Amino acid sequence: MKKNSKSYASRKNMRPATIPDMGRCRVVIESVKPEIDGGRFAAKRAVEEQMTVEADIFADGHDAVCALLLYRKEETRRWTETRMQPLVNDRWRGTFELNEPGSYFYTLQGWVDGFESWRQAFAKKVDAGQDVTLDLLSGAELVGLAANRASGEDRKLLTRFEVGFRSESSAAIELALDDELTALMKEYPDRRWATTYDKELRLSVERSKARFSTWYELFPRSCASSASKHGTFRDCENRLPYVAGMGFDVLYLPPIHPIGRSFRKGKNNSLVTDPADVGSPWAIGAKEGGHKAIHPELGSLEDFKRLVTKAKEFGLELALDIAFQCTPDHPYVKQHAEWFRKRADGSIQYAENPPKKYQDIYPLDFESERWEELWNELKSVMLFWCEQGVRIFRVDNPHTKPFPFWEWVITEVKEQYPDALFLAEAFTRPKVMYRLAKLGFSQSYTYFAWRNTKSELTQYFTELTQTDVADFFRANLWPNTPDILTEYLQFGGRSAFMTRLILAATLGANYGIYGPAFELGENLPREPGSEEYLNSEKYEIKDWDLDKPDSLKELIARVNRIRRENRALQNDRSLRFHAMDNPEIIAFSKRTEDRRNVLVVVVNLDPHHTQSGWADLSAEELGVDPQQPYQMHDLLTDARYLWHGTRNYVQLNPQSVPAQIFRVRHRMRREQDFDYFM
Amino acid sequence: MKKNSKSYASRKNMRPATIPDMGRCRVVIESVKPEIDGGRFAAKRAVEEQMTVEADIFADGHDAVCALLLYRKEETRRWTETRMQPLVNDRWRGTFELNEPGSYFYTLQGWVDGFESWRQAFAKKVDAGQDVTLDLLSGAELVGLAANRASGEDRKLLTRFEVGFRSESSAAIELALDDELTALMKEYPDRRWATTYDKELRLSVERSKARFSTWYELFPRSCASSASKHGTFRDCENRLPYVAGMGFDVLYLPPIHPIGRSFRKGKNNSLVTDPADVGSPWAIGAKEGGHKAIHPELGSLEDFKRLVTKAKEFGLELALDIAFQCTPDHPYVKQHAEWFRKRADGSIQYAENPPKKYQDIYPLDFESERWEELWNELKSVMLFWCEQGVRIFRVDNPHTKPFPFWEWVITEVKEQYPDALFLAEAFTRPKVMYRLAKLGFSQSYTYFAWRNTKSELTQYFTELTQTDVADFFRANLWPNTPDILTEYLQFGGRSAFMTRLILAATLGANYGIYGPAFELGENLPREPGSEEYLNSEKYEIKDWDLDKPDSLKELIARVNRIRRENRALQNDRSLRFHAMDNPEIIAFSKRTEDRRNVLVVVVNLDPHHTQSGWADLSAEELGVDPQQPYQMHDLLTDARYLWHGTRNYVQLNPQSVPAQIFRVRHRMRREQDFDYFM
Repeated sequence: MKKNSKSYASRKNMRPATIPDMGRCRVVIESVKPEIDGGRFAAKRAVEEQMTVEADIFADGHDAVCALLLYRKEETRRWTETRMQPLVNDRWRGTFELNEPGSYFYTLQGWVDGFESWRQAFAKKVDAGQDVTLDLLSGAELVGLAANRASGEDRKLLTRFEVGFRSESSAAIELALDDELTALMKEYPDRRWATTYDKELRLSVERSKARFSTWYELFPRSCASSASKHGTFRDCENRLPYVAGMGFDVLYLPPIHPIGRSFRKGKNNSLVTDPADVGSPWAIGAKEGGHKAIHPELGSLEDFKRLVTKAKEFGLELALDIAFQCTPDHPYVKQHAEWFRKRADGSIQYAENPPKKYQDIYPLDFESERWEELWNELKSVMLFWCEQGVRIFRVDNPHTKPFPFWEWVITEVKEQYPDALFLAEAFTRPKVMYRLAKLGFSQSYTYFAWRNTKSELTQYFTELTQTDVADFFRANLWPNTPDILTEYLQFGGRSAFMTRLILAATLGANYGIYGPAFELGENLPREPGSEEYLNSEKYEIKDWDLDKPDSLKELIARVNRIRRENRALQNDRSLRFHAMDNPEIIAFSKRTEDRRNVLVVVVNLDPHHTQSGWADLSAEELGVDPQQPYQMHDLLTDARYLWHGTRNYVQLNPQSVPAQIFRVRHRMRREQDFDYFM
Repeated sequence: MKKNSKSYASRKNMRPATIPDMGRCRVVIESVKPEIDGGRFAAKRAVEEQMTVEADIFADGHDAVCALLLYRKEETRRWTETRMQPLVNDRWRGTFELNEPGSYFYTLQGWVDGFESWRQAFAKKVDAGQDVTLDLLSGAELVGLAANRASGEDRKLLTRFEVGFRSESSAAIELALDDELTALMKEYPDRRWATTYDKELRLSVERSKARFSTWYELFPRSCASSASKHGTFRDCENRLPYVAGMGFDVLYLPPIHPIGRSFRKGKNNSLVTDPADVGSPWAIGAKEGGHKAIHPELGSLEDFKRLVTKAKEFGLELALDIAFQCTPDHPYVKQHAEWFRKRADGSIQYAENPPKKYQDIYPLDFESERWEELWNELKSVMLFWCEQGVRIFRVDNPHTKPFPFWEWVITEVKEQYPDALFLAEAFTRPKVMYRLAKLGFSQSYTYFAWRNTKSELTQYFTELTQTDVADFFRANLWPNTPDILTEYLQFGGRSAFMTRLILAATLGANYGIYGPAFELGENLPREPGSEEYLNSEKYEIKDWDLDKPDSLKELIARVNRIRRENRALQNDRSLRFHAMDNPEIIAFSKRTEDRRNVLVVVVNLDPHHTQSGWADLSAEELGVDPQQPYQMHDLLTDARYLWHGTRNYVQLNPQSVPAQIFRVRHRMRREQDFDYFM
């Protein structure tokens, strides 16, 4: 047979690993989930999450099968084993808790459970009153072999069982079906012919902020007391109580580097510039320095580090913008002209989207002959900011740089700073967004800003949370950004801002706003049909009136407190949409695994009219008894409603609050709960 | 950078192949279909089919991308390349024709198309009236490089274009946008940084009978002139015109080997046997021999070979039953007791399904210490019958033998007899059935016999034909077998037999019946609730009255002729179900790729009452103009119906024919078609 086995093994794409015992390894393991692109990429989780793995595990014939889920941290050799449970249709599931961030591997193992197969057949024969003398002897042999694998007390116990089997008393039958024996035999299985899944799949476990974070974006230069003054990091410190007071935990700053002067854009992205124009922070690089320098008007590196520390005191972690592009004034242009693409006349190629020209921006040429040097320099930029205490990077336009660069640089940075997080600002085609997520970005911007109707929201967030996408793509929802003022916000008034805030904060465990434009309801576009802000903060210093009476800051504070206090909102995996007979109202829920914390959110998507309707909720998903009343506690208004069964009425007035965030209170107090009862 | 690249490459599960040029290989290829279990198994096709491959292929940024589908036969080194076409959402599709059976590999390649990217930007600038002097020079460089890659006339032509680009005339612009140049540049792309998909996927192309076959199962021993005589292969020859006359092309015989005497079952599977009882053909092995011997009462090996030849003359290919199990009288029992499992007293373990005992059957122990010898012996059984001219094997209960055995033995047999086909008789759990198909079985029995209602049929056949299952699992539909007389057939009368025949023959490009029980409407079960035949042919010789007036032989002949004459029915991939407002009527269609042959089938599933309803057919799928009338030609009755639009009426009387098989005649004759017009 040797010869034949070899010819089989040498056949392309067949697994030689299965050959030596292939006649005896009867268990098959397939359709493992999660398994991203055949194991090419790691699945993503965060600490305090469970890792659940499912697979089809089965053997030929009708024998009983046992299956294990195995996992280990990358730096550990030893696998931890956990028993999998059969579901239906040969599907098995195993779970383990994630308490430490890091890189993990997981795989599976299955084998035919000889003793369990024997036990089931034996029990049927006993029930049918058949003679089982010989069967007892076969069973004794299996128990004896297990005893050899055991030691200590267990070995003694198993040996005692074996002896009992071989006795000719009728007690032997009872002994054979003893629960203790069944449990003990599971501990000492015969795994000689076990099948181990042929891949060790990767799992990337990040710290909990990868899963649950609340972002606030602001321009430090607008933090001074008036628009005529360029704000500094010191001014920014004064803004911290305001931001922290609304309950945010990430403070994201647009690029803080020297801003170029060549072709600098004026107010409203104008080509004509006034000498006083401050320019766009994304136009990086000037004689004062490039990506490792700080714009002098913001302050010094020391000021920046002080801001990082102060922010931390307020529970705010600083996120920096990584925008790998240069102005013509960037030091790289002179020092490393070879990192840029040349035009036919030898000049450096500026950015273009024909017929538009962006002469203030030189893209880096990732395909240049010197790409390795360029890549290393860019990595050193990220490491430099890590050294200054930054651990969150919001990456500008990652989709215009090669995929292999991101996979490499994220891996490299995480090797030195395992707690580094990366948010991909890739507003691009879906496959490209997903690829970037697979390559290692911790979080990603989404199409949320443009999903406004019930069907759009339902379809998109079902895809993000209920399909394989959820295993590698973590959404971060932004109702606005300095580049995106959607038509919904332009035309929907204050109610539209409330609606979009509540949707972002409850659909997404990660969300953010660009403020103070958002909470102050800034809604004027540069021109009709444009999604850019009029007098955009990207090109000028703004003087925000933070105390405007219609500011949404109190609502935001309340919503963010609800998020902090309800673990259900701190993950996206449990999101479920519920039927609602009014197409203008969307209803969904989130819950913890144990269903102790279940939230139901209903939102009026029509910013103009009061809408009402009947919600159909699944009692099972809410964890309520459909025969009993239960209380729905609206955490936004503190109102409490008595609901019964699965179909209940809601009414939402956009002029007050266009949504309700119900916490399900499973148990109503009843007469028995009072002292005077009985 | 060397050091870093290495640390990246050494990381587990990352593809070192991408490292050397990773900065420049910008194209990603993912989500390739078909790709069975990450490339572990071959996709299946048959000759005269197309192979269509789809994948997500994209790069960072906005550059144009080119993609190729590459394929080769296993024995050829050279890849044939075919250009892929973009669909939507970064999805690409490529196709090639399969004219030869064999083992193929296919893979994909994609690259950024520098010239096309340049051309698109250039055209926009020209449209905007911008100065393109420098752009022409960049273009000239790209054309010059392509000229270097070309030779002969093409090289000259490209050089001429390059020179034209560099001239300062306005004609240079026209030249740059010349269609001939665009086509020529596609022929000489810069593939230095092309991404090749990292798997060479396997494709198994079998002869056309794997895809389209019409099976008839009969017991040769019932082919004599009376039931008191044991039929022989010679008698069987006389039956050939009858079987061929109904239009079948595979004649499948139950096992033809010596039948054991120990514990032989009597009529109706009785434990009590009369010496005259002939036993079950599946009880293989007696003193006359085992799996390579012929039951003496059927004739000699010469007779068998003569039958194979005679059958071929009638267009019938013989299929043999492979049932790897033994009676206690099988020569293996004495010669190779080590191939069987022992009981505790040293006796050989008979088959059991506790509390049932099958003492007439000894299962082979595929896990024995001597499994390699056993496997080789079983392989030699198949090779032996191949040597006698058999190329189709119907494999009994493959799911009770280890999976690796089947993968090995099918591969081995096909290596010597590439035209061998294997039908898996695995009436077992879905995952097990699918796994056997992946391992190499050409065709598989299905749950068809138990799918009777419209929703059951629609759901099951959508899964089999419209999901990934279609890439590895070829259904063979049997309305009955010697073991399966469904309740639908027991209680539905003649009409039920017609319905199930037409469903099997039109839903499945591969189907079969067990006759003459089927065409003679045999419908009595052994007992109420049983699916076994009363006086089953498995245990006795039957005397069939082939000339019974209500025999379905003429209908069968007509249906099989329709199958032969309509290519649409010779594949399952094009199956689509259509809306029909009556739940008792099912409507579906099949078509050829070019839509020249489109069949619509409507079947009344209620064997008792006339049913009528309105069918909603998609005009696009039928290839008709919804604004014009078209003719529906019922190939069963030759009646012709004038239909219009997508919603049309049908009425089906189970007492005459419970179905219509329409061929769509796209074009109606009109006044212009007659001589006297004009």
